[in-house]
Amino acid sequence: MPKFQNIKLTKEIVLRDPVHEYIHIEDQVIQDLVATKEFQRMRRIKQLGPIAYVFPGATHTRFEHNAGVYELTRRICNIFAQKYPTQRSGDGLWDENNRLLVECAGLLHDIGHGPYSHTFEHLFGTDHEKIGQKIITDPNTEVNQVLRQVAPNFPELVASVIAKTYPNPQVVKLISSQADADRMDYLKRDAYFTGVTYGEFDLSRILQEIRPFSGGICFSMSGMHAVEDYIVSRYQMYQQVYFHRVGRAMEVMLQHLLERAKIIYHKGVLPVTPELANFLADSWTLNDYLKLDDGVMETNFLMWTDANDPILADLANLYLFRKPFASIRIDVETKNLLPKLKDLIKQAGFDPTYYTDTNSAFDEPYDAYKPSGKNANSQIEIMQDDGQLIELSQLSPLVRALNGTLQGDERFFFPKIMMSNSDEPQIFDPLYQQFQRYIKNGTLRYLRKPRK
Amino acid sequence: MPKFQNIKLTKEIVLRDPVHEYIHIEDQVIQDLVATKEFQRMRRIKQLGPIAYVFPGATHTRFEHNAGVYELTRRICNIFAQKYPTQRSGDGLWDENNRLLVECAGLLHDIGHGPYSHTFEHLFGTDHEKIGQKIITDPNTEVNQVLRQVAPNFPELVASVIAKTYPNPQVVKLISSQADADRMDYLKRDAYFTGVTYGEFDLSRILQEIRPFSGGICFSMSGMHAVEDYIVSRYQMYQQVYFHRVGRAMEVMLQHLLERAKIIYHKGVLPVTPELANFLADSWTLNDYLKLDDGVMETNFLMWTDANDPILADLANLYLFRKPFASIRIDVETKNLLPKLKDLIKQAGFDPTYYTDTNSAFDEPYDAYKPSGKNANSQIEIMQDDGQLIELSQLSPLVRALNGTLQGDERFFFPKIMMSNSDEPQIFDPLYQQFQRYIKNGTLRYLRKPRK
Amino acid sequence: MPKFQNIKLTKEIVLRDPVHEYIHIEDQVIQDLVATKEFQRMRRIKQLGPIAYVFPGATHTRFEHNAGVYELTRRICNIFAQKYPTQRSGDGLWDENNRLLVECAGLLHDIGHGPYSHTFEHLFGTDHEKIGQKIITDPNTEVNQVLRQVAPNFPELVASVIAKTYPNPQVVKLISSQADADRMDYLKRDAYFTGVTYGEFDLSRILQEIRPFSGGICFSMSGMHAVEDYIVSRYQMYQQVYFHRVGRAMEVMLQHLLERAKIIYHKGVLPVTPELANFLADSWTLNDYLKLDDGVMETNFLMWTDANDPILADLANLYLFRKPFASIRIDVETKNLLPKLKDLIKQAGFDPTYYTDTNSAFDEPYDAYKPSGKNANSQIEIMQDDGQLIELSQLSPLVRALNGTLQGDERFFFPKIMMSNSDEPQIFDPLYQQFQRYIKNGTLRYLRKPRK
Amino acid sequence: MPKFQNIKLTKEIVLRDPVHEYIHIEDQVIQDLVATKEFQRMRRIKQLGPIAYVFPGATHTRFEHNAGVYELTRRICNIFAQKYPTQRSGDGLWDENNRLLVECAGLLHDIGHGPYSHTFEHLFGTDHEKIGQKIITDPNTEVNQVLRQVAPNFPELVASVIAKTYPNPQVVKLISSQADADRMDYLKRDAYFTGVTYGEFDLSRILQEIRPFSGGICFSMSGMHAVEDYIVSRYQMYQQVYFHRVGRAMEVMLQHLLERAKIIYHKGVLPVTPELANFLADSWTLNDYLKLDDGVMETNFLMWTDANDPILADLANLYLFRKPFASIRIDVETKNLLPKLKDLIKQAGFDPTYYTDTNSAFDEPYDAYKPSGKNANSQIEIMQDDGQLIELSQLSPLVRALNGTLQGDERFFFPKIMMSNSDEPQIFDPLYQQFQRYIKNGTLRYLRKPRK
Repeated sequence: MPKFQNIKLTKEIVLRDPVHEYIHIEDQVIQDLVATKEFQRMRRIKQLGPIAYVFPGATHTRFEHNAGVYELTRRICNIFAQKYPTQRSGDGLWDENNRLLVECAGLLHDIGHGPYSHTFEHLFGTDHEKIGQKIITDPNTEVNQVLRQVAPNFPELVASVIAKTYPNPQVVKLISSQADADRMDYLKRDAYFTGVTYGEFDLSRILQEIRPFSGGICFSMSGMHAVEDYIVSRYQMYQQVYFHRVGRAMEVMLQHLLERAKIIYHKGVLPVTPELANFLADSWTLNDYLKLDDGVMETNFLMWTDANDPILADLANLYLFRKPFASIRIDVETKNLLPKLKDLIKQAGFDPTYYTDTNSAFDEPYDAYKPSGKNANSQIEIMQDDGQLIELSQLSPLVRALNGTLQGDERFFFPKIMMSNSDEPQIFDPLYQQFQRYIKNGTLRYLRKPRK
Repeated sequence: MPKFQNIKLTKEIVLRDPVHEYIHIEDQVIQDLVATKEFQRMRRIKQLGPIAYVFPGATHTRFEHNAGVYELTRRICNIFAQKYPTQRSGDGLWDENNRLLVECAGLLHDIGHGPYSHTFEHLFGTDHEKIGQKIITDPNTEVNQVLRQVAPNFPELVASVIAKTYPNPQVVKLISSQADADRMDYLKRDAYFTGVTYGEFDLSRILQEIRPFSGGICFSMSGMHAVEDYIVSRYQMYQQVYFHRVGRAMEVMLQHLLERAKIIYHKGVLPVTPELANFLADSWTLNDYLKLDDGVMETNFLMWTDANDPILADLANLYLFRKPFASIRIDVETKNLLPKLKDLIKQAGFDPTYYTDTNSAFDEPYDAYKPSGKNANSQIEIMQDDGQLIELSQLSPLVRALNGTLQGDERFFFPKIMMSNSDEPQIFDPLYQQFQRYIKNGTLRYLRKPRK
Repeated sequence: MPKFQNIKLTKEIVLRDPVHEYIHIEDQVIQDLVATKEFQRMRRIKQLGPIAYVFPGATHTRFEHNAGVYELTRRICNIFAQKYPTQRSGDGLWDENNRLLVECAGLLHDIGHGPYSHTFEHLFGTDHEKIGQKIITDPNTEVNQVLRQVAPNFPELVASVIAKTYPNPQVVKLISSQADADRMDYLKRDAYFTGVTYGEFDLSRILQEIRPFSGGICFSMSGMHAVEDYIVSRYQMYQQVYFHRVGRAMEVMLQHLLERAKIIYHKGVLPVTPELANFLADSWTLNDYLKLDDGVMETNFLMWTDANDPILADLANLYLFRKPFASIRIDVETKNLLPKLKDLIKQAGFDPTYYTDTNSAFDEPYDAYKPSGKNANSQIEIMQDDGQLIELSQLSPLVRALNGTLQGDERFFFPKIMMSNSDEPQIFDPLYQQFQRYIKNGTLRYLRKPRK
Repeated sequence: MPKFQNIKLTKEIVLRDPVHEYIHIEDQVIQDLVATKEFQRMRRIKQLGPIAYVFPGATHTRFEHNAGVYELTRRICNIFAQKYPTQRSGDGLWDENNRLLVECAGLLHDIGHGPYSHTFEHLFGTDHEKIGQKIITDPNTEVNQVLRQVAPNFPELVASVIAKTYPNPQVVKLISSQADADRMDYLKRDAYFTGVTYGEFDLSRILQEIRPFSGGICFSMSGMHAVEDYIVSRYQMYQQVYFHRVGRAMEVMLQHLLERAKIIYHKGVLPVTPELANFLADSWTLNDYLKLDDGVMETNFLMWTDANDPILADLANLYLFRKPFASIRIDVETKNLLPKLKDLIKQAGFDPTYYTDTNSAFDEPYDAYKPSGKNANSQIEIMQDDGQLIELSQLSPLVRALNGTLQGDERFFFPKIMMSNSDEPQIFDPLYQQFQRYIKNGTLRYLRKPRK
């Protein structure tokens, strides 16, 4: 592997970061990447989107997360270079020539994200991974121009690391695996900003035990319990934060709001900023995408609160001023009851198309050896004293319990008023009471026949 | 004092908060206030504005801060009610009937803030305190409607606490004094989100030692060092965070950006959202104000990056994509050199009106007994075992050192390129070198005459 | 239940505690109990005994732990009194009359512990639970004298809470169950002082969700994941701290040291302090027990380092100056190899009686419904919205995976030199090499036959 | 400077430390030093002695502190080697050949401490600095034997660093100056274990800014506020922890206990362990000293609680079971009242020789340029951008306020019963009341003449 042209800064730059204390920038190219428009734009995109409506501290942005992934990658490279430097090709140890490449990949791995990526992908067919590849390889972006200065094919190399097609598995798996710098950063960071301490895990121990091997990265046996704890923390963060019912309610509402906006837009009466208009019109460009951020979206929503269309205006208000839908757990069987519930909701004055929805949130906390899927071939290996690798779930009863399972639930969302229980009789009270008879302990259930 | 009509929630609501762990809401009126549009809107206004460009974690909003001040107020009320309940009128102890009032005042004390309040007040004559009073007392706001349900004059009472005209000094000083719930929350919170640990102080000890007296609130002698440390932390946060030269550079640029926009607007060619337009036209209403937030502002700036006016477009780009001005310390004497510097800057191609500025940032970390000013009559008193009060600076050498002093500096801001030091000769290099001869260790200085 | 005579302190006393910030003492009886000789004595007994040889920070004592259990009990009582006060007998809510009783039981639950309790119980037949009961109920102790001032039968009541025979299950289970104040304190405290962060769990959330019911204490459904995390933390602390191989090596050596001392004592030539002598002579009294502490034991060991008996002197040196035995994992099958290993060790010059041992360390991280054993009938219940209780392992896949399992290992301990691998040939090298052939990845294994 | 013979460990050893996360041992000599008897002995000597009676968490030992100073020294060497490696002799940068020397000096800087060093030095003329030098240079110690393997004169070199006679000021000042690894470790560590958070300072920032110069070590200008905060923290720890009145009361009692023991010993009737006996007989050796620790001392005290001499037995009980003397602030003027007070105390039945004392505790938080004294020539220098050094108190108003001042107080100690205030009249009540008339707000004062 050739050495890239790499200009070291005469004095390192540090960014204060509450999660990693400091982010250290030592290379001109890293400094220049951070300064690009495409990277700075991420300051205006919250890492957890509507979850800030549930955990008010969670206002941290994709900017910090990307910088944090870079920093973790840099630290792991330092450890590898000090403890496991390659001696000869193929010895499965660390080749320091990969450092700048993997650091750039860490920094840019999420560069393709826009505001509310999930909802956007669903509604407008954007794909943040493809867009990220484009931002890196398109000669018109500032990111590309910076990367090209390292080597003409450097943008493509960085893109290939993120796309997992780069041949060196150590480099790829530092960025994308079940124990990569990406996940380590977001778990720590999201735990810090939400204040949810059970998302904590022992990062310093994990960095003490991480090591390269010919097939990627693994951990020493004495780090097994730290890795186990990290998997448990990840599971906890999914159950407690990422799948929080109110966060999902906000996301459902956001989706309906944009769906309604699309319809109204095609009727031609929607106040909307030009870039978002292009999305509603299904004719957007990369440039439009790069001009979107949380603030632009909320500016549009704010305009829509005064829209003539009552559904659009209502949904915009509900979303912006945090009036989330209520929700209940459902399953395959009880789903059959939803038409009845929707009918009651309709009778209570709400259009079920916009005021109800179902939403599944399931995560596989860990997966050993599944050949397809998001976590393909990224099982976590634990190295024994003699160099033998044992897959994590073989060693940990906790990971074995989670291995290959899907954790989460499916929920039905609807207007909160349906759950109301007023003292004074109201016009819709009988409807609400009828609705509530189907619900017990937050779960949809079949009514038992009244005894005769 | 009459008891207010206060409906307790059947089950308390808790908000997860990384600073105080949980914010506990026990009253219907507090829940309803949080749900108002005016309060929810603060989720979209960062607490520290452009400082997030310096400390990337500092994306926390005025929403959390206000909730945090409420929570601290609530906890102090709990402590007072348990340890120092009034027995008879005039005994200088705590009257629990004031609880709801002071909690509401804590929650709403900053409700008048908009985006970039400082810059706005300067440019558009907004006054966040007056606007706050209006939001509370204007019958058209949701906040007012909620407060009125407690008692017809309750909005006015809450407003009077914030305005420091309410007669009970304990109530007023919990919200506004040199050791109030407001400052305690923002110091802890800003330290947490910036990651600047020397802003930490021992809140749990301070809450252990706080107590009411007839003239307001004070602290037991055994808490003296904890209070001293809090004053030192406050000083440190001002020097290190609030007065950071890059944060001030961003603020200077923001101000010039808006000044330029105003001029261009009056020429009639500025793309701008309607509410901001009303500010540029100097004809804004409370409603316009309530529709502004950080995202709306940045949406406008984003539009302006493509503006025809090159200065406006440039400033918008510099601000949004974080290219701060450089700066140097100046003083009364060296200020006389600024015309020379501005002239060099002009020769280098920059209009000094928009590309240079001076900015003073000074804070009085503590003040004993000054009869006027922001901290008037809010000196911190320490209660001896026999009940005697001694003012803090009499007891602490550190506070005495800071007492009544102004800490900070005055700076001159200008384009960073003036400090460039390129290897290859550039067209403006002689200008830059001439400029830099006036600067040593970040400070403007007179040149010594060259020896003959 | 009668109200006990309880004198409140005019001013509460606070103890600074790094784990709970402050320990608040509000009652004369609590203050007096802390001041007794039997309680103060616990300042001289480390909570984790020889584990401080592995985790140097773990020098905290049983004094702090007992105070911490008291503090947690007090806080839970506060929560119960505020949120779940009983209205009428039998409603399953909290009767505040039990407060003083349960606080005293929390404070005194471990009062029977002496230095190295485990080893002592094994060697001298002491039983810290019975001794604890005696300290509380024997009229000669200061503890008993303090308790009697509350009510004549108060010592017996406190003892019955600790012995789990007190009729109110809420009171008993606050002190002894799978989620009691005892475990919550020691997990937090041991994590803090060892520095092992994966022992952390979200105590503030657990205190938010804990509640009484007719059968004891349980947790609200929204606290399920916090309780799950606490069980996982407990499992982690056992695997990583309490069962650490080096800590167990030190404990094995301690036991052999005392066994050897007993033999030498009966030969009549051992320098020993009088109280320990009574134990070696098997004729000890409660008074002797109360005069032992870590320092007294180590003072004896220090004397023994100069003993004439070479084994005693060597073991005392090994223990005091931390030269732990090495160890390997064994199982039912490989145990059959131990005679061979011991023979090699003997050939290398070590008496296997004193220089080898096996030690099992297994813990049941959680157990639902087993009718016997340490955790009998203390399964953790989660209360649904409608009041229904569901046992924790029904809800959590992690707890289900751990439920009823034994986690840990069995190890064989031996002199570290057997693992040596010197460059220069030494007299015993062939022996060492032969020994090491049985070991792979820290585990004992059968040798494969060499191929012919 | 010659390179020392230094064998790197094949695999680094890590010690878990709650303050620095991990202590990394990379060299054989460091590992061997830690394993010596003289070093392991420090596990049995508490860092803060009787202060654990005030802050129960403060049970940490000199072992951890010494290991922590080593670790900080190691980290600073890493930083210096990476950022400021010397290029040519005399350039004022860091010579990596000094690393092993300064690491050993850091590890051993406090090796001469025994139990209750202060009290011992006072009573028995021990001098922990001289003893430390002896432990390092005496060929009979294990420490010396390990050090000699590096080079024959290595023990003397290490000793000279600790004695500040080694010629390289960078090496000396890393271990002994007003901002050395010793102080940084003990402030952090004592804050952690006492739980006193206002002792916290921003160590990671300080390590970011520390740098060598020809005269020693200094800090970059951007670290000025972090250093300022460290000085303030140090001041706070002295006022709040090290000078705590109850800790001093315990120390006063300890001293009187040993004084009394000396007298009784010379009467020939004292039960005492042999090594302590040699101290009481004023004929101790280094070996005796090395056999003392906290546990040995307390074992003696425990024996003395049953002594025939009532004063000795009483003082031993008061000390061991924590019944501290009360105390009041005195000054030069009010000292004249002490004979009167002592007379009252005598009338109340206490021998003033053993039951009263005065004690001064003053610290100089910072000192610029004083040519003599503990902090001689170790003022803190701040390096400007152009390399100029400015002494810290020139830059910081806080440090200027503390510079050269003595902070602390002088107190008079006496039996707590003198402050009692019983409801029922007791025999000595009039005496107590007369005594208490001299005290106001914890301070001794002159009585005003009663008006006629």
